[in-house]
Amino acid sequence: MAVLASEIDTLLQRAARIAADYLESSLDRDQPIVAWRAPEELEALLQLELPRVGRPLDEVVADAETFLRHSVRTGHPRFFNQLFNHLDPAAVLGEWLAAVANSSMYTYEAAPVFTLMEEKLGEKLCSLAGFDQGEALLNPGGSVSNLMAMLAARNRSFPRCRVDGFGPAERPAVFASEEAHYSIARAASICGFGLRGARAVPCDEHGAMVPAELERAVERAAEEGLTPFFVCATSGTTMAAAYDPIEAVAEVAGRRGLWLHVDAAYGGNVLFSPAHRGLMAGVERADSVSWNPHKTMAVPLHCSALLMRDRGELHATFATNADYLFHDTDEGNRDRGDLTLQCGRRVDALKLWLAWQAQGDEGYRRRVEHAFESVAAARRMVLERDGLELVREPRGCNLLFRWVPEEWRATPLAERPVQAMDSVNVELRERLKRSGRVMLNYSRIDGRVALRLVLTHPELTAEDLAETFDAVELAGAGSL
Amino acid sequence: MAVLASEIDTLLQRAARIAADYLESSLDRDQPIVAWRAPEELEALLQLELPRVGRPLDEVVADAETFLRHSVRTGHPRFFNQLFNHLDPAAVLGEWLAAVANSSMYTYEAAPVFTLMEEKLGEKLCSLAGFDQGEALLNPGGSVSNLMAMLAARNRSFPRCRVDGFGPAERPAVFASEEAHYSIARAASICGFGLRGARAVPCDEHGAMVPAELERAVERAAEEGLTPFFVCATSGTTMAAAYDPIEAVAEVAGRRGLWLHVDAAYGGNVLFSPAHRGLMAGVERADSVSWNPHKTMAVPLHCSALLMRDRGELHATFATNADYLFHDTDEGNRDRGDLTLQCGRRVDALKLWLAWQAQGDEGYRRRVEHAFESVAAARRMVLERDGLELVREPRGCNLLFRWVPEEWRATPLAERPVQAMDSVNVELRERLKRSGRVMLNYSRIDGRVALRLVLTHPELTAEDLAETFDAVELAGAGSL
Repeated sequence: MAVLASEIDTLLQRAARIAADYLESSLDRDQPIVAWRAPEELEALLQLELPRVGRPLDEVVADAETFLRHSVRTGHPRFFNQLFNHLDPAAVLGEWLAAVANSSMYTYEAAPVFTLMEEKLGEKLCSLAGFDQGEALLNPGGSVSNLMAMLAARNRSFPRCRVDGFGPAERPAVFASEEAHYSIARAASICGFGLRGARAVPCDEHGAMVPAELERAVERAAEEGLTPFFVCATSGTTMAAAYDPIEAVAEVAGRRGLWLHVDAAYGGNVLFSPAHRGLMAGVERADSVSWNPHKTMAVPLHCSALLMRDRGELHATFATNADYLFHDTDEGNRDRGDLTLQCGRRVDALKLWLAWQAQGDEGYRRRVEHAFESVAAARRMVLERDGLELVREPRGCNLLFRWVPEEWRATPLAERPVQAMDSVNVELRERLKRSGRVMLNYSRIDGRVALRLVLTHPELTAEDLAETFDAVELAGAGSL
Repeated sequence: MAVLASEIDTLLQRAARIAADYLESSLDRDQPIVAWRAPEELEALLQLELPRVGRPLDEVVADAETFLRHSVRTGHPRFFNQLFNHLDPAAVLGEWLAAVANSSMYTYEAAPVFTLMEEKLGEKLCSLAGFDQGEALLNPGGSVSNLMAMLAARNRSFPRCRVDGFGPAERPAVFASEEAHYSIARAASICGFGLRGARAVPCDEHGAMVPAELERAVERAAEEGLTPFFVCATSGTTMAAAYDPIEAVAEVAGRRGLWLHVDAAYGGNVLFSPAHRGLMAGVERADSVSWNPHKTMAVPLHCSALLMRDRGELHATFATNADYLFHDTDEGNRDRGDLTLQCGRRVDALKLWLAWQAQGDEGYRRRVEHAFESVAAARRMVLERDGLELVREPRGCNLLFRWVPEEWRATPLAERPVQAMDSVNVELRERLKRSGRVMLNYSRIDGRVALRLVLTHPELTAEDLAETFDAVELAGAGSL
């Protein structure tokens, strides 16, 4: 059914009002993060059936409003549940206009402005990483960026694999720390090395890879008959936000002929800050870097950059030269569709470009520094409160801690009962989530449950943190 | 820099106006599709540098308006360049609100409404394909859906591969028609089979796979020592929109123990039409189907569904059970993050769900039937015009044709000079593109250049087609 221009206008104006209200309410600390409901209950409430005959637009918009009411306000200052949170209004503008421009990033002719924009963003991101001759591509998430890096590395080390497949004697191995993101092991499985082709390297007490352990793991793999060819150093691990020592890892990689990939999906933003970029010292020695602006540069999902030190490696890995799409013209040389494992690819450049205009490098520097200040403040609060236990000394922008029930507060940390502590912390975390007051996540670290605060929200205050820890203690005591 | 609520409101209202104007102008046939410029010229004009210090939002919005002015109006009725075109306003609403909701599809707790919505869309899409026990997932494009299907097939046929990698004697082979999408061969390369592990099966004169040739190709591969395990039948090939005979391919797949994947990324919409769904007869026998609503259901990129006949295969292929993310709770059982090769995944469900509410099955049926009517009308016009030559009898919603210079119109089709005809057609297509009047694409088919019209725009009229062919003839004669 054709929709009239005036209807489109009315619809989009209404969308803008709904969205503005939602963004505003996300920053309203008195609002719950989510009005939590169980799946069955929510299902019954929403009635999501798909109709045989179309419904009036008015009704459809009303439904959309309802859905937002039942969604999680991920921009709320007390939403600590994932590695993303706040949204930059300029980025929302970018995502909205990219949606109506509705093009695909494979060719210059289909997306001229956005192609040039992605090139420019790539230059800038590469220069922050110290890649003077590099290129970058925006991908649907860090897992895809990591997979693409591994495929590029595979192509360099096993140049016949792209065309001929694996030779019978080839058993490649990749390496990442035991606290690296699961996408590395899964990428190894996708590439045909198997999950066992991905070796986990032990970490130190902060969660950073131990370079000597990397060297040992590489040796052991070689003794087993595997061919080590790729190592991933993580800048900002998923749980602890730990930073692997890139310089030392690069030394091992250099000696052993490994492709060095840096997974800075979460932690890459320290490159904006003279005070903190030392955490990624040596990054310019990497072959590739993943860096997700959707995590800490406040743009909507997805926006994951893969930075390549050398131009041409992506093309060598992925190009198929499909002649229905890529044409040999002057502008055809700017086509980016053969640099990726996708074909059609969303315009993720516009939101990042517009947000960057609004923030500038300086805005991002301030955000990074604010996040580290939040970590320091949160750490102090945990140490000051009897009911809380610090799990790790933080090095990045996450804080790992636990609640301690009254009866074990006098017990030394090491002797507190693991299983009982685990289950009270898991329970209190569920209670927090359902309360809508705080949303944080947890995982097992060093064999025990740790609660995680992701402290990168640019509007996070000391009051928010105090309120968060109050809620944790109340939930622990069963009073929330 | 924090932005005030009133500023957000103003910004989003302005975005809505810009977007409404743009969508309106896209449907204005007097507007050019693009004000074409060469990359260097556009670069100089746009000044895309990223600033050290943030700029006022007002300036940023003004930039965004400029970018749209220089973008390609992909919703224009005479934009035939890609397999997507029109946008449904309800889908735009969905994309916009998904952007501000900014969640990720990995867990129910982070995206409760959208998780249920994707389940419901999956049920519906599966039921259209005849999968009663299936499940579906929305992915960033058909290439990713195809890759995931191949990985699931690999996991079934080579169950040790996921964990242990390839054994030394394993040389898997996959099959697709010679006119299948390039993502199939590239997926084979990614999986470790090499581009040569993907065998191209010859097609008939309409571009449909010949089942007997498939059988022969499978035999030949087995004789070479390969292990055939996967065949892709295409429903709607990229150039000709041809439909492979699924029933007959399923027979071969059944006899040879191959996973049957149907790549209906482009052509899946015939399932809405009793008149045309026969083109996909036998689809219920497939193991998996790719189907891209962003192509013909008028939702913004991306929205690609992978439909699985059997629940559980995706989980078996991709699950890593990362304990920082997936928790063993009642609602945790609804988590969808372990069904994919991504980690964070955009909310693509909302736009499709809202668009479907506005259209209903009936709306989509009408669109499919309108597209086939457009093909019939375009075919008649090509046959009626001396200056045009039909390249193939169409079976789906694309039309392949050529312009014929005056001097060869009396020459029988088969004797017209290949190289000269190729270059005039490529040239005229470039001229059309730069004129902004018509944008269509081309490729080599049966060794010769064919121009392609993608005829799925729901507002396409006979006048648009006449205007298009007029422009082609003018461009051919050098008068455009």
